[in-house]
Amino acid sequence: MWGGHYSMGPAEAFAAINPSIAVDQRLYAQDIAGSIAHADMLAACGIITEEEAREIARGLAQVKAEIESGTLQFSQALEDIHMNIESRLKEIIGAPAGKLHTARSRNDQVATDLRLYAREVVAQLDGALKELQAALLAQAAQHVETVMPGMTHLQPAQPISFAHHLLAYGEMFSRDRARLADACTRLNECPLGAAALAGTTYPIDRAQTAEALGFSAPMRNSLDAVSSRDYVLELMSAFAILATHLSRLAEEIVFWTSPLVGFVKLSEAFTSGSSIMPQKRNPDAAELVRGKTGGIVGSLVALLTTIKALPLAYNKDMQEDKRPFFFAADEVHLCTRAMTGMIADMTANTARMRSACSLGFLNATDLADWLVTHAGVAFRDAHHLTGQLVKLAEAKGCGLEDLSLEEMQTVHAGITRSVFEAIAIDACVARRTSLGGTAPARVSAAIDAAKKAWL
Amino acid sequence: MWGGHYSMGPAEAFAAINPSIAVDQRLYAQDIAGSIAHADMLAACGIITEEEAREIARGLAQVKAEIESGTLQFSQALEDIHMNIESRLKEIIGAPAGKLHTARSRNDQVATDLRLYAREVVAQLDGALKELQAALLAQAAQHVETVMPGMTHLQPAQPISFAHHLLAYGEMFSRDRARLADACTRLNECPLGAAALAGTTYPIDRAQTAEALGFSAPMRNSLDAVSSRDYVLELMSAFAILATHLSRLAEEIVFWTSPLVGFVKLSEAFTSGSSIMPQKRNPDAAELVRGKTGGIVGSLVALLTTIKALPLAYNKDMQEDKRPFFFAADEVHLCTRAMTGMIADMTANTARMRSACSLGFLNATDLADWLVTHAGVAFRDAHHLTGQLVKLAEAKGCGLEDLSLEEMQTVHAGITRSVFEAIAIDACVARRTSLGGTAPARVSAAIDAAKKAWL
Amino acid sequence: MWGGHYSMGPAEAFAAINPSIAVDQRLYAQDIAGSIAHADMLAACGIITEEEAREIARGLAQVKAEIESGTLQFSQALEDIHMNIESRLKEIIGAPAGKLHTARSRNDQVATDLRLYAREVVAQLDGALKELQAALLAQAAQHVETVMPGMTHLQPAQPISFAHHLLAYGEMFSRDRARLADACTRLNECPLGAAALAGTTYPIDRAQTAEALGFSAPMRNSLDAVSSRDYVLELMSAFAILATHLSRLAEEIVFWTSPLVGFVKLSEAFTSGSSIMPQKRNPDAAELVRGKTGGIVGSLVALLTTIKALPLAYNKDMQEDKRPFFFAADEVHLCTRAMTGMIADMTANTARMRSACSLGFLNATDLADWLVTHAGVAFRDAHHLTGQLVKLAEAKGCGLEDLSLEEMQTVHAGITRSVFEAIAIDACVARRTSLGGTAPARVSAAIDAAKKAWL
Amino acid sequence: MWGGHYSMGPAEAFAAINPSIAVDQRLYAQDIAGSIAHADMLAACGIITEEEAREIARGLAQVKAEIESGTLQFSQALEDIHMNIESRLKEIIGAPAGKLHTARSRNDQVATDLRLYAREVVAQLDGALKELQAALLAQAAQHVETVMPGMTHLQPAQPISFAHHLLAYGEMFSRDRARLADACTRLNECPLGAAALAGTTYPIDRAQTAEALGFSAPMRNSLDAVSSRDYVLELMSAFAILATHLSRLAEEIVFWTSPLVGFVKLSEAFTSGSSIMPQKRNPDAAELVRGKTGGIVGSLVALLTTIKALPLAYNKDMQEDKRPFFFAADEVHLCTRAMTGMIADMTANTARMRSACSLGFLNATDLADWLVTHAGVAFRDAHHLTGQLVKLAEAKGCGLEDLSLEEMQTVHAGITRSVFEAIAIDACVARRTSLGGTAPARVSAAIDAAKKAWL
Repeated sequence: MWGGHYSMGPAEAFAAINPSIAVDQRLYAQDIAGSIAHADMLAACGIITEEEAREIARGLAQVKAEIESGTLQFSQALEDIHMNIESRLKEIIGAPAGKLHTARSRNDQVATDLRLYAREVVAQLDGALKELQAALLAQAAQHVETVMPGMTHLQPAQPISFAHHLLAYGEMFSRDRARLADACTRLNECPLGAAALAGTTYPIDRAQTAEALGFSAPMRNSLDAVSSRDYVLELMSAFAILATHLSRLAEEIVFWTSPLVGFVKLSEAFTSGSSIMPQKRNPDAAELVRGKTGGIVGSLVALLTTIKALPLAYNKDMQEDKRPFFFAADEVHLCTRAMTGMIADMTANTARMRSACSLGFLNATDLADWLVTHAGVAFRDAHHLTGQLVKLAEAKGCGLEDLSLEEMQTVHAGITRSVFEAIAIDACVARRTSLGGTAPARVSAAIDAAKKAWL
Repeated sequence: MWGGHYSMGPAEAFAAINPSIAVDQRLYAQDIAGSIAHADMLAACGIITEEEAREIARGLAQVKAEIESGTLQFSQALEDIHMNIESRLKEIIGAPAGKLHTARSRNDQVATDLRLYAREVVAQLDGALKELQAALLAQAAQHVETVMPGMTHLQPAQPISFAHHLLAYGEMFSRDRARLADACTRLNECPLGAAALAGTTYPIDRAQTAEALGFSAPMRNSLDAVSSRDYVLELMSAFAILATHLSRLAEEIVFWTSPLVGFVKLSEAFTSGSSIMPQKRNPDAAELVRGKTGGIVGSLVALLTTIKALPLAYNKDMQEDKRPFFFAADEVHLCTRAMTGMIADMTANTARMRSACSLGFLNATDLADWLVTHAGVAFRDAHHLTGQLVKLAEAKGCGLEDLSLEEMQTVHAGITRSVFEAIAIDACVARRTSLGGTAPARVSAAIDAAKKAWL
Repeated sequence: MWGGHYSMGPAEAFAAINPSIAVDQRLYAQDIAGSIAHADMLAACGIITEEEAREIARGLAQVKAEIESGTLQFSQALEDIHMNIESRLKEIIGAPAGKLHTARSRNDQVATDLRLYAREVVAQLDGALKELQAALLAQAAQHVETVMPGMTHLQPAQPISFAHHLLAYGEMFSRDRARLADACTRLNECPLGAAALAGTTYPIDRAQTAEALGFSAPMRNSLDAVSSRDYVLELMSAFAILATHLSRLAEEIVFWTSPLVGFVKLSEAFTSGSSIMPQKRNPDAAELVRGKTGGIVGSLVALLTTIKALPLAYNKDMQEDKRPFFFAADEVHLCTRAMTGMIADMTANTARMRSACSLGFLNATDLADWLVTHAGVAFRDAHHLTGQLVKLAEAKGCGLEDLSLEEMQTVHAGITRSVFEAIAIDACVARRTSLGGTAPARVSAAIDAAKKAWL
Repeated sequence: MWGGHYSMGPAEAFAAINPSIAVDQRLYAQDIAGSIAHADMLAACGIITEEEAREIARGLAQVKAEIESGTLQFSQALEDIHMNIESRLKEIIGAPAGKLHTARSRNDQVATDLRLYAREVVAQLDGALKELQAALLAQAAQHVETVMPGMTHLQPAQPISFAHHLLAYGEMFSRDRARLADACTRLNECPLGAAALAGTTYPIDRAQTAEALGFSAPMRNSLDAVSSRDYVLELMSAFAILATHLSRLAEEIVFWTSPLVGFVKLSEAFTSGSSIMPQKRNPDAAELVRGKTGGIVGSLVALLTTIKALPLAYNKDMQEDKRPFFFAADEVHLCTRAMTGMIADMTANTARMRSACSLGFLNATDLADWLVTHAGVAFRDAHHLTGQLVKLAEAKGCGLEDLSLEEMQTVHAGITRSVFEAIAIDACVARRTSLGGTAPARVSAAIDAAKKAWL
């Protein structure tokens, strides 16, 4: 395969480690599209004939069909998808196949393929995220007035609307989509024509191939074009960040569906049982979304570690970019889909959510706020006084709202009956009307705005 | 500190693990700026008096002065920068200090501080990267016509211009700057007023504080505002990617300055010696830039792992965001500065670069290209024939250009004397005039364009 | 500092990145111990005089005292702890100080220091883990008969003894200690005398210094001695694995202490409050233990990435080994101590644990087992039948034990009254007497065995 | 599959994320061995009949044969290897198949399978490392007296024996093997019989199955047995550390084979060419070994991140342990084999190595040492004086050995003619006779000792 100065085949261990065809075969469509654009350009520039370009295009169409129908057997000896395709092309069209590789190299070819593929990955993931946001919005629309304990440190903090909680994740996924879009804009430049590393002596037209393949422009430096993988790293970073969002939501689903908590139920379609315990309904998909986050983070580490300290230009180490990228892209897409399914599937136990609001003095902040606004106490002091009331209620084993007015007044004489209205759970939620707050009116408006922004 | 329902101090091990003041004290200026904006807004909304707001602003200015002059002793018992500042404020202005914390929480406060700080980090790093690009451009301008061996797999590939090689890194840093800018735009929304997690019952004006602090808008969801750290992760990802670029250039400097290679020399100002070997001039700064990449990648992993699977809203785990972020920001800035210094300091050994071009048949591709364009051979066949010529030259221990015409013709009869012109090293470089190629004319134009784009 | 062939000082950016004294100063005691052993050996071998060795020892003792009393100001210009100490030694004892560095280099010196330090880290961490195991055993001893829901997938699985649950962690920490011990045995070989990389021409006695410093033997290859950091990586791996164990237990404490679960309570000594919510008792220490796991994992990644692909022998990149190692060692020790404190501090709510056993059909497996052993059903079929009974109970909103015998018999006619005895929660626990099972008798024996094995 | 209380099939997204059969099918042999041992034990304990146990063993042998001949089609719907095997067993032997799963669960089953598999991974990798050490020793034996520049910071340091350099890696791999052996001893305990999490009510004999499967003992705590994955993490850490050693050697091979350095040549059997540059002989295998280190480190991060903060006992996240473990084990084994091939394949260019010793004043330390031992100068001063001589030689463009005696004496009057003998390169190597040093006599002895210790 390496022509005239090679007289020996690869050693067994070399033949085992060197080929990439098992991984890069999934770039076949991008590789063929790139080759057709390249041949067209070579013909337009008079480097090959129009007839040769047509032959090449015809032959590549056949190769593509053979790959898609599964009739083309890939060869390890031919190393990678590029050589497998070109070799088959030669069998089909003969001599003109040998001209296709003029003015390019596998170095710019694979960089082009991978950028084309990356664009599709982003488009599909963006679509999946949009569906996830739609599922969140659909659940949220049902639960604007569903009150649940808002938690910090897994301790009851303040009552919130369940819809408000779901929308917080929608915001995160919104930024995830923006990150992917930014990365995609940045990577959408064409390396083709950089050749091995230094450009080429042929009078090619890089603008033509760039445009034909939907890139915004040719890349400006040939060494950079074949050596850089920051676009892969940027996407994998975006995947890893997205995965942390998915895993946070997954953690909550695992928590919410535990009978000890009982806020949410998944149907049999999203749980599985046990080989030994007949009663089980395990939230496996949520756990897998959470668990797969490790693999997605690990893939990013893999490529960062691989790229670290590689000199210019292409090094074979860079062949190891595709496996972690494909893996992370597949997994994060699968996790997004599974999450969409769970969000759509889940049923909130609104009664349980409400009853849980009686635990943990969720209305303590509102009591303190009442002291500030109705009794003229500075917030820090109101905080202290409320702490004493909490202690009193704790000793009695009741909620703040269950204390008598007299008991309250032992801590601060200025407390009046109107406090009870202020610390009713629904009132606590309803009065958090600050921008971005959990009051149902705010949440309804947020849903409307999000529908426009996200869908 | 936790008011009315606490009657016991922290255990020793708890007091050892809990405080963050050693790390978060560097947010003091942001914290004070945020508090002044908050107090102004509280006054504008009638929640506190104008007089109280003035007192708070005056007191905070004094606290800031005390911190900057080193007279304020931070207290571990007060846990963090927020409580240290507020506690000192109370000593200075008395009662009104207690009203500052109305309608906010440490949860939205720290998120605000960190976003403000992140903006400054980006601004400084962007400036440092611009200086690095300027240093690269200055070196490149000296070396448009300096020919060196272009390498792939650390094997000679094709001759290139040294300027072209340096510009490739300039392109990478350009994308790094764009990534930082995108991240900065995305994070520039204001969490202040989200309070603990759910918004607040006070009639606050979040748009006012957002504007006063230079944010583009208030964040839309209070839970998201206090729970999200994707902006930190996005910046740390950008740092890690930038670090791979710096480490690649560092690897090259280590290689280039090795006497075995000898392409580049660093002065005594950027090398150090050995305690035992008197002759040493080690490129320590380049090695440190390369080595510190590990720490920057590790910091990203640290936070990804920490954030993974945290339920909403704030959890104490998130306190562990600042150390890796500050560390990575400091290190990547230091590495950028050290790299700028080295690029400016280094002297190219142009004679050595040129003489190295005689190794490894750098002009083999040009010979194959000559066969395509002058002898009508398909590229794949030309590649094969050239391989045979390489074998011939290797056997003779000479370069391709040292073969006689007759020797060449034993491989292909159509080879003529004009081939020697085509494979002269300078010609090989000069004829790579494709867009983005290494021809001096292209490189000069690229320098001009880069000056406009980068500086 | 680099002697005769340097005529220029470091550039500012170089002076900023190069020194390590801020980090490696904590090796002072090891460095001094190593130097004293080295000087003694040089004297014993006749390379320096006994008088010089005595002077050196005396001077180093003074340096040590000055460091410990804080009177020695470390100098950035002197780069590292080795040069700072030697420079001060020269001020104190004059000429003989110049002979100390005979037959060694900073390369073997720092490797020796770090191994000595690593041994101490392991000894301290082992002690802390032993205390943690003691705390677990003390709690376990109180709760052999405390029944709680054993969970898989955070879903109720089978009832277990709380002591049994705690002992599972004890087993993990036991393996952690064994891992640390294995690593410590492996690293306990002496690099001193490897000199810069190749050994030395002086007639030194490496066995003497190795023995004096408590190493088992001198290392066998001088290049390996100065170039290897696998001992640091091995320890950091052990820290990371230990951190996952600590974080798992921390996750459980966060879950258990949530009022929604309520299995365990931490005192005020191990919780903290909120600046806005007066009722809060957050399990901050548990969250920090969980969160710090990220930093410990990230430190391992940092060093793996740094060491990857470094050629022999010493490279400056390796200076970056100490920061992540010290950090990880400090953090994992702090986390271990905090966990010990929490385990000792926590109070189990045994009533709540027991009442929670009525959720989620914890006795379903026992019902299936009863069908196997008393009604001759194959396990797979018994599993299926029990599933039907679970469905029946679920529909009625009761536990399996609350079904009537007649209801049970609708699913399998062979069910008799004795089934109720078998599925009583305490019976379920008591009958899991298989080796390693949760039956109180087994657990008691396990506690006794663990006391011997661990303490 | 989950029996009586399930009435609905899995959703599509759930069916896509949940099954593990694609990954865990490679555990089939371990799973079957474990089941046979379990069935034998059940019969020995009277829980099933001897006849049933025989039927089960016969059926499982058939399943194994079907898997190995490729006739058994695995089913996604059956989720994992355990259910696939058991389901096929039921088809073959009918009713007794239903009794196999008595007194066990998939939780202890998969933990048993994975430990059995891990043992085999270690055995194979240990064998591969032994072959690598043998290859290193074979090369070393050829090159005891081959002198090359020893480098630190990629700068010439002191001359060394090439054999000595190779042996340094042998030492590293020796510790890698010890790490694997320690991990294997630690993991060789049997989880079988822990059942779902709590042990079992059946009168099983865990010691019997442990012994039958070659484990040293049953695990002591049932929760630990099904929940722990530290044994996987420990092995993956050992892989990652080994990978750093392999990548360091790979980096050196890439450097050595660069024509600019030219120390070593790989044959065509271990290099490959370029699709565009006909002269290329790229050391792809070395680059891939270096590059794959990223993936191996990433796999460790994947599992550390996945396991972090999982509560007891089994969680579905833990299903994600196998993919990274299998991947890392495969890759590190492949890299070890490729490295063995390269070490055996490579030819040292001893002439080039020697001529390179004239670069960079490799004998400067020896000159300084001569000043100490022959002119009574303290080492620090000798270092300084030698630095001045280096400067002198640098100015003249020659080596230290090329200075005249008179020139030397301008720096120190006590220098005599004998210095030239001392600084001859071979003498420099030969006199480093300290234990572990590079003197040929020492290196020969080290080879002999290593043969005994490693092979």
